[in-house]
Amino acid sequence: MSVESILLVATPAAWVDAAVEGWRELLVDHANCEKKAASTALALIFAYPEDTQLGLSLSRLAREELRHFEQVQGAMTELGVPFTRQKPGRYAAGLRSVMRTSEPGRKLDLLLTGALIEARSCERFRLLAVRLQPPLGRFYARLAESEARHFELYVGLARERGAQEWEARLRALAGKEAELATSQDGELRFHSGPPAP
Amino acid sequence: MSVESILLVATPAAWVDAAVEGWRELLVDHANCEKKAASTALALIFAYPEDTQLGLSLSRLAREELRHFEQVQGAMTELGVPFTRQKPGRYAAGLRSVMRTSEPGRKLDLLLTGALIEARSCERFRLLAVRLQPPLGRFYARLAESEARHFELYVGLARERGAQEWEARLRALAGKEAELATSQDGELRFHSGPPAP
Repeated sequence: MSVESILLVATPAAWVDAAVEGWRELLVDHANCEKKAASTALALIFAYPEDTQLGLSLSRLAREELRHFEQVQGAMTELGVPFTRQKPGRYAAGLRSVMRTSEPGRKLDLLLTGALIEARSCERFRLLAVRLQPPLGRFYARLAESEARHFELYVGLARERGAQEWEARLRALAGKEAELATSQDGELRFHSGPPAP
Repeated sequence: MSVESILLVATPAAWVDAAVEGWRELLVDHANCEKKAASTALALIFAYPEDTQLGLSLSRLAREELRHFEQVQGAMTELGVPFTRQKPGRYAAGLRSVMRTSEPGRKLDLLLTGALIEARSCERFRLLAVRLQPPLGRFYARLAESEARHFELYVGLARERGAQEWEARLRALAGKEAELATSQDGELRFHSGPPAP
């Protein structure tokens, strides 16, 4: 399963243009995304301590996300982008609104949402990598590879734990993800929709 | 500043004896402690995103704690210790009860408490390293060294951010920590007091 095949729609060109223009704002959000990715993995480890395979895989993933966070902070310093507080985007809350909150559905939905977020990150890093100057372009190309691995990891964990229904649930969650990533959005964020024209 | 000088009292021999006897139960708690240490560091990074030096240091620390978590899970598998759900100990809640909840005191107290927890961990790993058989004894000896570095990191961050009052606050928090680590406790945990005789 490829990153492209899991996402129901491609990122609109208008988002890419806005992101290239607003790369500084996006870099601040990106630092936050890496922290959130680590924190989400850690929350899964805490929620399912008896699932030791999940614990091991997601602990390694969280370490990689933290290393990326350190690299983004380094890039911000290097490129003279100061930290600023940003309003949260709508993406995470939007995805949460369609996730099941009781088990065993909750666990599967958390893993599948993890896969979707990593897939969208990978797609957008690839799009930005070819549009941004080095060092940021090169950095984003490397990150795209990591996100592709993380996407595969989450899909693999979900598949092993929800053999009956994972594909149907993935399609349902991907529908919401596609809507959030492509419909007009008030904030420019790494996972936002395109801005108003 | 040494680990010994920050802790107001040494761990009682009765705790060490109980921990050597109950090493399996302790190993399960230990896996949880490593996760919690990573999660606490991450919470600090989220709470103070403008403090980039803190973010970088604690992100590295969190990665090291996660690696330890993976190693403890590996040791559990190797030694045939299954995961079991445990009642939480009183230590974390006890420390929280004396920490300040409004800024700027909150930040300093979080860092100093981090230092105290790492110092106690280091002291106890050293005590257990010489009493337990390999591979656990050797593993705990290595962990004692890491915890000593983490202790120094937290003290350094606190000192730089609370030049006026850090020593007075450290003594106050260390008083509560000493009470929790040495008074009779209903549960055997890595940071518990000794069991009833």
